Amino acid sequence: MAGELTLLDFWASPFGLRARIALREKGLEFKYVEEDLDNKSPLLLQMNPVYNQIPVLIHNGKPVSESTIIIQYIDEIWRDKTPLLPSDPYERSHARFWADYIDKNIYRVAMGVCVGRGEVQEAAKKELISCLKLLESELGDKTYFGGNTFGLVDVCLIPFYSWFYGIEILAGNLSLKEECGKLVSWAKRCMERESVSNSLPHQQKVYQVLLELKHQHHSRSAHHNPDSLIN
Amino acid sequence: MAGELTLLDFWASPFGLRARIALREKGLEFKYVEEDLDNKSPLLLQMNPVYNQIPVLIHNGKPVSESTIIIQYIDEIWRDKTPLLPSDPYERSHARFWADYIDKNIYRVAMGVCVGRGEVQEAAKKELISCLKLLESELGDKTYFGGNTFGLVDVCLIPFYSWFYGIEILAGNLSLKEECGKLVSWAKRCMERESVSNSLPHQQKVYQVLLELKHQHHSRSAHHNPDSLIN
Repeated sequence: MAGELTLLDFWASPFGLRARIALREKGLEFKYVEEDLDNKSPLLLQMNPVYNQIPVLIHNGKPVSESTIIIQYIDEIWRDKTPLLPSDPYERSHARFWADYIDKNIYRVAMGVCVGRGEVQEAAKKELISCLKLLESELGDKTYFGGNTFGLVDVCLIPFYSWFYGIEILAGNLSLKEECGKLVSWAKRCMERESVSNSLPHQQKVYQVLLELKHQHHSRSAHHNPDSLIN
Repeated sequence: MAGELTLLDFWASPFGLRARIALREKGLEFKYVEEDLDNKSPLLLQMNPVYNQIPVLIHNGKPVSESTIIIQYIDEIWRDKTPLLPSDPYERSHARFWADYIDKNIYRVAMGVCVGRGEVQEAAKKELISCLKLLESELGDKTYFGGNTFGLVDVCLIPFYSWFYGIEILAGNLSLKEECGKLVSWAKRCMERESVSNSLPHQQKVYQVLLELKHQHHSRSAHHNPDSLIN
């Protein structure tokens, strides 16, 4: 028995997508609650008083926050079906290292590409390509980052595939398929999984969100520092 | 049998201290290798090619990086003696949340207090007190963050106690004992453990390091942005 599962989320959030993919990999039913990020619900503020951020997974009334922690929680509670973390402690630490690498870099740098301008954007583009190429070398010739099985690192990274179209358009002259074709092939393999294809929004819809963020950022930063990145 | 354990580290690093405390909690023998951070060893560059940073724990020739991941690795391999993570998955996610909170905030903000000037330093002081008070409310009336047992969150936070003297001096008018007396009492309880007292350096020695960082920062930032924090 899964117990009662509720996910407080926002449809385009790469972090929320991680939780949705992990729940679907386990075949778990959950109540999806869409949050208005400009007017957060009292439930969200109560369940995540430290950050007031989505995603929050509420399991039998108890909240778990931070997407990488949510994935591990789901995997530890429902261990039997499609394990997302390796059973070997060394391999587990290796997966955690790369999940942490993604957490520290991809959102920040991709956002720099999407909302940055001029030199700041150029630097972010170079950094993004360098991060993705490093991830590509970690992937190597494996089917998934988890080897033959789809795992933690795959769940953490694949949501950003829904940003690829927006990143290319907003970056101007950039083809992620040309820069990191192996990673794009990996993403397409992931998209063959129902947990992923049923979760990821259309790339054009995500582009609209990124474009909106870019406009908000520049109307705000006209009054602040024009070169700072959203955070 | 522990196998062969080597720790690449730097004596004053709060992150390295976490690894040392975790190893000592488990009663494990390890070879300690002090790194010169201005001239890192080929071994460090080979073992942590992504970040080139200490600490790295090398276990039977295989490296584990990132202090919070190292602690979890140690706990998963040597589970029997003094478990550092709770056995219940919900409590484990709760401990991971606060360890992550410390990772995201304390080093960055404490560094802001130590090297910042003027308004930047004042803002960092306020933020540091607010972070520590939040941690104090999470501690509540428990002996340790882990309840009756010293655990992951305790290991992650206690190294920063060795900064307290330096923070107070560099901040000017600040008494951490007055601001968060309960947290200072917790730190003193932790210092009664041999794993902690044998690891933490003298606060005056750490102050000299922080002072040196402040001078380096300001001689560098004279050519860059005088208000940016070290990172």
